[in-house]
Formats: sequence, C-alpha cells, structure tokens
Amino acid sequence: RINSDRLWDSIMEMAKIGPGIAGGNNRQTVTDEDGEGRHLFRRWCEAAGLEMGLDEMGTMFARREGTDPSLPPVYVGSHLDTQPTGGKYDGVLGVLGGLEVVRSLNDLGIKTRHPIVVTNWTNEEGARFAPAMMASGVFAGVLDQADVYQHVDKDGKKFGEELERVGWKGTEKVGERKIHAFFELHIEQGPILEDEGIDIGVVTHGQGLKWLQVTLTGKEAHTGSTPMPKRRNAGLGMARVIELVHEIAMDYQPDAVGAVGHMQAYPNSRNIIAGRTVFTIDIRSPEKEVLDAMDGRVREGIDTICDALAIKYEIEQVGHFDPVTFDENCVKAIRDAAERLGYSHRNIVSGAGHDACWINRVAPTAMVMCPCVDGLSHNEAEEITREWAAAGADVLFHAVVETAGI
Amino acid sequence: RINSDRLWDSIMEMAKIGPGIAGGNNRQTVTDEDGEGRHLFRRWCEAAGLEMGLDEMGTMFARREGTDPSLPPVYVGSHLDTQPTGGKYDGVLGVLGGLEVVRSLNDLGIKTRHPIVVTNWTNEEGARFAPAMMASGVFAGVLDQADVYQHVDKDGKKFGEELERVGWKGTEKVGERKIHAFFELHIEQGPILEDEGIDIGVVTHGQGLKWLQVTLTGKEAHTGSTPMPKRRNAGLGMARVIELVHEIAMDYQPDAVGAVGHMQAYPNSRNIIAGRTVFTIDIRSPEKEVLDAMDGRVREGIDTICDALAIKYEIEQVGHFDPVTFDENCVKAIRDAAERLGYSHRNIVSGAGHDACWINRVAPTAMVMCPCVDGLSHNEAEEITREWAAAGADVLFHAVVETAGI
Ligand SMILES: NC(=O)NCCC(=O)O
Ligand SMILES: NC(=O)NCCC(=O)O
Repeated sequence: RINSDRLWDSIMEMAKIGPGIAGGNNRQTVTDEDGEGRHLFRRWCEAAGLEMGLDEMGTMFARREGTDPSLPPVYVGSHLDTQPTGGKYDGVLGVLGGLEVVRSLNDLGIKTRHPIVVTNWTNEEGARFAPAMMASGVFAGVLDQADVYQHVDKDGKKFGEELERVGWKGTEKVGERKIHAFFELHIEQGPILEDEGIDIGVVTHGQGLKWLQVTLTGKEAHTGSTPMPKRRNAGLGMARVIELVHEIAMDYQPDAVGAVGHMQAYPNSRNIIAGRTVFTIDIRSPEKEVLDAMDGRVREGIDTICDALAIKYEIEQVGHFDPVTFDENCVKAIRDAAERLGYSHRNIVSGAGHDACWINRVAPTAMVMCPCVDGLSHNEAEEITREWAAAGADVLFHAVVETAGI
Repeated sequence: RINSDRLWDSIMEMAKIGPGIAGGNNRQTVTDEDGEGRHLFRRWCEAAGLEMGLDEMGTMFARREGTDPSLPPVYVGSHLDTQPTGGKYDGVLGVLGGLEVVRSLNDLGIKTRHPIVVTNWTNEEGARFAPAMMASGVFAGVLDQADVYQHVDKDGKKFGEELERVGWKGTEKVGERKIHAFFELHIEQGPILEDEGIDIGVVTHGQGLKWLQVTLTGKEAHTGSTPMPKRRNAGLGMARVIELVHEIAMDYQPDAVGAVGHMQAYPNSRNIIAGRTVFTIDIRSPEKEVLDAMDGRVREGIDTICDALAIKYEIEQVGHFDPVTFDENCVKAIRDAAERLGYSHRNIVSGAGHDACWINRVAPTAMVMCPCVDGLSHNEAEEITREWAAAGADVLFHAVVETAGI
C-alpha cells in the first residue's frame, strides 16, 4: 500500500499555489501560478530520483528507470492546471498519485521491468484556452500543435506565447514517445460512487463531447425607444439557445448532458439591446449516435431561433471527442487490483473528458476513479477524504506495478 | 434661425474626442475622454462670453447674463457622456444645440430678460455607473449624492472618486439653483418621426422605467459529470428570465418595452455550470399602472423560475423613474415655435429617459426631438442629417428666447 499521509500532504502543499477565493484553486494553465506548481512538482520528482523530460507542449515526463530500459514505459499521471474556480483534487490527485506510486516503489526498493513515467499534461481544463485536454490531444495526433499555439484566451493572449513566457516550453517533439500503457487516477466529479458507498470506479468508457462556440449578431439599439417589433436582440437569441440546449439534454438524459457555461453579451450595457453574443455549448453523451443527434438538433434549433429574431449566427466547433472505450487489459488490471486489495468497486463511465481519453487512441489506457463529496467538481468546494484518495492510489499502484512487471 | 453649419461643425469636433471603433463614440462618464470633452465645451463657452459654474456632481452650468440678473435663468442642455458604443448625437446635440442658441443670440446682439444657462449634466447614460440621469436625479432630489458617490463600475471604481480624479468635481451644492424653465433638444432614438417624415417631435410625455438588477445563485458544477437532475444552473435561470421579460413586454406592447442588455455569468467557463449570474432587467412604459404590473409579473416569474431550478435570487432596483408629463406651457412654447418656423411636427412620447424627466419635477420643462436614421441609437452607427439638427436647434432657439423674454 502507498503512503497515504505523504500523498495527502503533497496534495495540500500543491493547493497552496494559486489559491482560490473560497478554499479551492485558481491555477489556470500556463499562468505564473501554473509555473510555480510545475517547479514544485519538478523538485519532488528530482528528490525521488526521476529524470524530467519536457516536450514542446509543456508536458512534463518524470522517468523512473526500469530494469530493462529498452522497454516502453508505463505512464501514469493527469494534470496540475485548474479551473478559474477549481478544486484541489481535479487532476492533482492523478499526478501526485503517480508520484506516490514511484515514491512507494522507492520505499519498498522495488524495481520494475518497464520504466515508469509520471506525467503532467498541459492544459487539461480548457478553461483559459479551448479545447480541453490540449497537450494530450496534440500527443495523440488529433490536435495540431501549430494551430493550438495560436489559440487565444479572453485577453487575446496566445497559448504558444504564454507557454514560452512562463518558461515551460520544452524542446522534445510531441507524440514520439512509445507508451506501453497509461493509467490515470481521477476523482469521479459525479455523485455515483459516493451515493452507492463504493470505493473504486473502474472506468470502462468515457463520454463523447462537443463544444460549439456560437456567435449571434443582431443590432445594438436603445432598450427604451426601440419598438419591440423592430428589435434584433442577440441577448434574447442566446437565452433561447441556452434553453434549447437544456431541453435537448433533458430529452436524452440520463444518456446525455448539456449546458452553456460560457456566455458574453456585447456591449453589455443596461440600456443597449445586445448586438452580439458569444457563448459555448457543451453537449456530451457516452453514445456517439446520441451526441450526433444532439448536435443536429442544436444546429437546427439555432437556425429556427435566429430566423424568428432576424439575427445571424455562426457556429464553430472548438472542442470534440468521440466516446471512448478503454483498453480491456488495462481495465482488468484496475479491477483486479481493487479486488485484490479488498476495495468495493463498480464499472463506471467518465462524465468528464480526461487526458486518458486521448491517450487511449495511441496506447492501452484505463482510469481509476475515487468518489468526491456530493459529486461536486469545477467548484472550489470540491472535496474528497484522505481514505478515498488512498484507496485510489493503492489501486493505481497495483495496476501500474502489475503492468510494468517486476 | 441658428447657424446650422457652426452647430454641425461643433458636433463633429466633439465627436473626435473618445472615438469608438465603428464611427461613433466611447466617451463614458468621468473617464479621461469625458474630461477632454468637458474642456472643449468649456473653451467654447468662454469664447461665447459665458461664465462657468460646476457643482459637486460635476454638472457644468454656462451662464449668459440676462438684462434682469435677479430673474431665475432659463436652462437649456443635455449631456456629453456616451454609451461604450454610442453615437455622436445622443446628448451632444442637446448641449451643443444649447450653446448654438447663445452663440446665435450673440450674433444677433439679442439680450434676454432672464439669464440663459447651457448645461451639461453628468452621467446621463448610466452605462458605466447606474442609474442613468444620475446628476439631474440628484439635482431634482430623487437620488442621494452621498449614495451615488459610492456606486461602482465594472472594475469596482467609485463614481465619486472617479469624478474627483478627472478633476471635474465642483464645489457648488447640487440642486440649489432656481430654474425658470428647462428645455432639452434630443434625437428621438426611435423610428416614428423618420417613418412619418416629420421634422419635429413635441415631447409631451416620457416613459417610466425600472432597472432591476438580479443575482441568481445556483451551484458551480462540472458540465460533463453532473447528472441533469442534480444541477442548479444559474445560467439557465438567467436565460429563462430574459425570455420572461421579453414575453411580458410583448404582452403590453406597444405600451411597453423590456429587455436585458447587461448580463454576466460566473465563473464563465465552458465546462462549469454557472454558479452565479448577474444581469439587469430594463422595463418601461408610459403608463405607471403598466410599469407596476410588469414589475409585479417579473418578480413573480423570477420566483417561479428559481423555484423550479432550486436556485436563489436577489432583486435590487438600481434605477427607477415614473412616467413623466411635461409642463404645458413649455410644451406649448415648443409647438408654437415649430408652427411659427413652418416645421412639420407631432406630439411624441419619449421612449428613453432624459435629464429633462428629472428636472421636470422641480421646474417647468419640455423637450424637442428631431428624427434619427432608422430610429437607431446606443449604436455607433447612430445618424442624423444636418437639416434635422438645424430644425431642432431652430425650434429650441425660439422656445428658449420666447420663455426668457426680450
Ligand atoms: N476532468 C475534467 O474536468 N476535464 C476537463 C474537460 C471536461 O470538460 O471534461
Ligand atoms: N437618452 C438616453 O439614451 N438616456 C439613457 C437613459 C435611458 O436608458 O433611457
């Protein structure tokens, strides 16, 4: 078993960097805070005797040599970046859980045949720069590196330039590493495990996602003196699309979810009818057919809404991944580990996207989940117990060691 | 008749200060740009022999002495501040139209019995700091000066401190001036005069308004992993309220309008269900009973919407004025002037709020309106013709001189 106190202490230490305003964290990708978090992680890796690699997307790869260095490593990790109002565990548990795996191996003096590489993927959250899981997406060959370098945040800053500014742009080409297997430990971010009192989620599938960024163009006009029939109200259009997305998701749930979390009106003045609105639709389903059907209905609905309001629209897909089926052997390694350790477990579908979803396309991959209080995530109040974290890291440890061989 | 070329040139000169991005202006109240516009206006007033007064709300009063200085002056003016994406005429026409009245009197060597005071009221737009018509509201005793000094803009800057920073906080107590009558020339900001091909709107009434700032509090949560029934989506709540306001306004139109132009979601991230939204409802009607009924329905509707979504709400009234009936004699002075000058005219209700609406509570007041292209205002593309401006200023000139006496 891993050292649960050390794991917990490290999580709390990391949480001091980029504190939020309500007990959580604001350590968004390639900010100064992210840079500081990376430094701390590097110091810990060096203390554990790992050798650090850094690729052109800023992803960190901390290697523990295997007894046969020619074998492809087993990768284990997640991400250290957070939402603007994020929790202390989302991503961090997976990276520091990976670190705890090698620290425990060091303690026990165990050498594995395959090397082990603890990984911190850049920009998993996609909060500051769309899309989410950016670095793992480039690694898996589904996103274009030159393209994502150009993506801008709300202040117009480019991802590539910010990565360079904070000093974490490496020289290693992205995606050339051979991966024997990849394991990611993550909090569930949903309520199922806690509700059912189960220790471990064996993640068999991941939901597919589409992010559709919509721009509506109406006409700025005075809220007081413009007759109702003369209005071309882009704010009203946005409101109707938000309702539409909700209705469509309700039609397909529990096999789908949908919401709009990002929205902006221009010029955003109390007495100006919005001439333009920009917002992002987030729709998800574990079934590709459902996701495609939702996408079709959303587009049709937007067309009808805009037609009725005499406003124009543009839709840009700024994020997309298909539903994922994780690798049978890796999933089995996790289930067997939970079984062996005596933890209660069940199969589960990940509602969120994860770096593991992309890496699964290029290497055998699976995920371990542990419960989180009230299913709450992407909220500073996100919480887990020390025991839940320990159980997840124990299972991770066993699955990794099993796969890396002794 | 006034000098229409001089009036037009002055408007174009003022429009160079705080240019917008699409041909209009961004000269929001108590910004550096507003300060620069005030300096230009002061220079023009001094050149015309006027004496400048400045009160604690920053309102500028440029006085042309009357033959009987003991008589209360006739006031004429409007505002020089603009929306963030405002036009060149909204407000400016009224201030510079007032200046043109005294310039023409100077040209003609006419002395009036009552003094004439050309006025630039501070923060008419209410875009940067709610409410609109702030300085005239304090002057009329309906707003509290100490209170509005504390109102903050989006960056948390206080009105009172910004007024001081730009150097336009005067020492004269607000509201102590005796006003014989107040006249305001303004563009219609609606389509009626242009549609009917009429030169002059004789404003008999002004719509009443309520601004209700609503804060909805739900729960930040992950858009992907939070089951639909577990959500407390403040973004969806806002969308429903925006639709509600529209529906209520449609029920009462053409005797009412309603919209939401200001809206903000928190934390405004693509994959976080909004935990909080803040937005301002703008409802208006020329009938007090209609306005009150709308207010009641809006509040009831918000309660129902929030109940269904398990979210909390707070409603704060951040702006309010009752419908206005302008002074009979002042209105007649305007109608008579239009008649005498041979301009086509009709009675009209102001859809927008104006400083005249507040001043009407403490002194006989009326307004002249001229058409604007396509009824468009609060838009950088706001446009009028030189002839429309000239007709409005001619009528203003005659009404003012008639009222001030020769
Ligand atoms: N795990 C997680 O929250 N990832 C962010 C990408 C997503 O929105 O699912
Ligand atoms: N005239 C004008 O646009 N005033 C601003 C206050 C309002 O919203 O009516």
